Amino acid sequence: FEPMSMFTPKKKTQAVSYCIHLSFSERAKVCKHPVAKRLFTLMEEKQTNLAFAADVTDSAEFLKLADLLGPHICIFKTHIDILSNFTPNVITELKALAKKHNFLIFEDRKFADIGSTVKNQYRSGAYKILDWADIVNAHSVPGQGVVEGLREAAKGKERGCLLIAEMSSKGNLATGDYKAATVKMAEEMSDFVFGFISQSAVSRKKTMIHMTPGVKLVPGAGTLGQQYLTPQEVIIERGSDIIIVGRDIYEASNRLATAANYKKVGYQAYCARVFRSKDE
Amino acid sequence: FEPMSMFTPKKKTQAVSYCIHLSFSERAKVCKHPVAKRLFTLMEEKQTNLAFAADVTDSAEFLKLADLLGPHICIFKTHIDILSNFTPNVITELKALAKKHNFLIFEDRKFADIGSTVKNQYRSGAYKILDWADIVNAHSVPGQGVVEGLREAAKGKERGCLLIAEMSSKGNLATGDYKAATVKMAEEMSDFVFGFISQSAVSRKKTMIHMTPGVKLVPGAGTLGQQYLTPQEVIIERGSDIIIVGRDIYEASNRLATAANYKKVGYQAYCARVFRSKDE
Repeated sequence: FEPMSMFTPKKKTQAVSYCIHLSFSERAKVCKHPVAKRLFTLMEEKQTNLAFAADVTDSAEFLKLADLLGPHICIFKTHIDILSNFTPNVITELKALAKKHNFLIFEDRKFADIGSTVKNQYRSGAYKILDWADIVNAHSVPGQGVVEGLREAAKGKERGCLLIAEMSSKGNLATGDYKAATVKMAEEMSDFVFGFISQSAVSRKKTMIHMTPGVKLVPGAGTLGQQYLTPQEVIIERGSDIIIVGRDIYEASNRLATAANYKKVGYQAYCARVFRSKDE
Repeated sequence: FEPMSMFTPKKKTQAVSYCIHLSFSERAKVCKHPVAKRLFTLMEEKQTNLAFAADVTDSAEFLKLADLLGPHICIFKTHIDILSNFTPNVITELKALAKKHNFLIFEDRKFADIGSTVKNQYRSGAYKILDWADIVNAHSVPGQGVVEGLREAAKGKERGCLLIAEMSSKGNLATGDYKAATVKMAEEMSDFVFGFISQSAVSRKKTMIHMTPGVKLVPGAGTLGQQYLTPQEVIIERGSDIIIVGRDIYEASNRLATAANYKKVGYQAYCARVFRSKDE
């Protein structure tokens, strides 16, 4: 899959040639998807393209991190199903913190079943994800039924979905035709799908948002096949929009300062990209 | 991906040419995987290759079905995260019913994340899946890290995993290279992975068990992209071992009789396959 540039400026990394000359606020203006519009707008307002991956298992710590890091992030990414002491009150408090600090909540559920099943998984069960997560994501492997099921469940609510177009883990199969089919599926269902989890800009649509996990200031390999990239690589070279950082922040001795630094580095990379492309 | 036959008898459907001449008890004998061995053994004892997909959202109905259908099934397949009124007591009762009726519990979670995440999703959260599900499954798209993470969490417990090699939903991407990579991954990690969710026999290893969802006595297409096959097609023509049936049973006016019929039809198809191949 080799997407062609819509703007084709001078020689430049192929991946970043679509809409990198546009600022988040310019892209917000042309967005019809309410969640994408909200996200672009708050990113520019708060000057942050940092999503925090809250991969902790204690509910109190989870909420403490949402309050502490809230001012620096555009998205609080959850794995609600790893909290060992979950109660519905965690959701009530998280929603209040999202409002207080103006961030979106993204449950990284990676829905990956047929439509009728994901519909129930999304709205029902112990977690009732539909009630509180602005954003969810899905694997494309089940075919478009997975998105149709989620979209049906979300009807009438301001909700959006990302498709997983690329992964950062070793030996993953989200490549080649799989990736191309995922991008096509997302673009065809852009009333509900507004972006991607990916390692680079995989769609040339300027309303599509790309988010990249596996980001560290120092690149390298982790345990269990995880691989890391730097914010500059992700935003400038690969044309993604949002860096997703977890462990490096929640395991830091000074979590707030580390998050503030990632915010600065991530947003500077975005500014450099927009400036550089406008300059050419 | 075109697996070659180990036994290559006369002309026969390519998919069913590996180990179809072996009975479940013969395959049990050569199994090292404790869960596969248990499953093959109880299938022959109870004369059933029927797995029931308990896709209901009410906990009382869920348990009622486990008790009612228990004598006729080898596996009770759950989506624990669609129960609207889940309490830990549901698990306690389900485990007691599994013991009473001698069936295995398969949580159809479709794990699909990096190793460090699925490890927590498997053992922690509201559902503590590791504590009660004999079997779980995973998508191969994240690469082998997904299996490594689950295997690490399960260490010391009698647990097994299936990989999703093929899906029944329209436009699904579990085909071609993706499917081939999935089969390879499973065979390389056969200390933990003992089979597949698939539409046909995708591995020639006789210890690998194939389970097929989307089975109905009358074939056709459902809503949200689901497609159906008959038990005979699945077991005889395609060489799978276990039929997974949900809606057709729990929506029947006589659930018990319907399950008993699926059990009979499914097991007869298996017997016909073994007999036919022995006869040749």
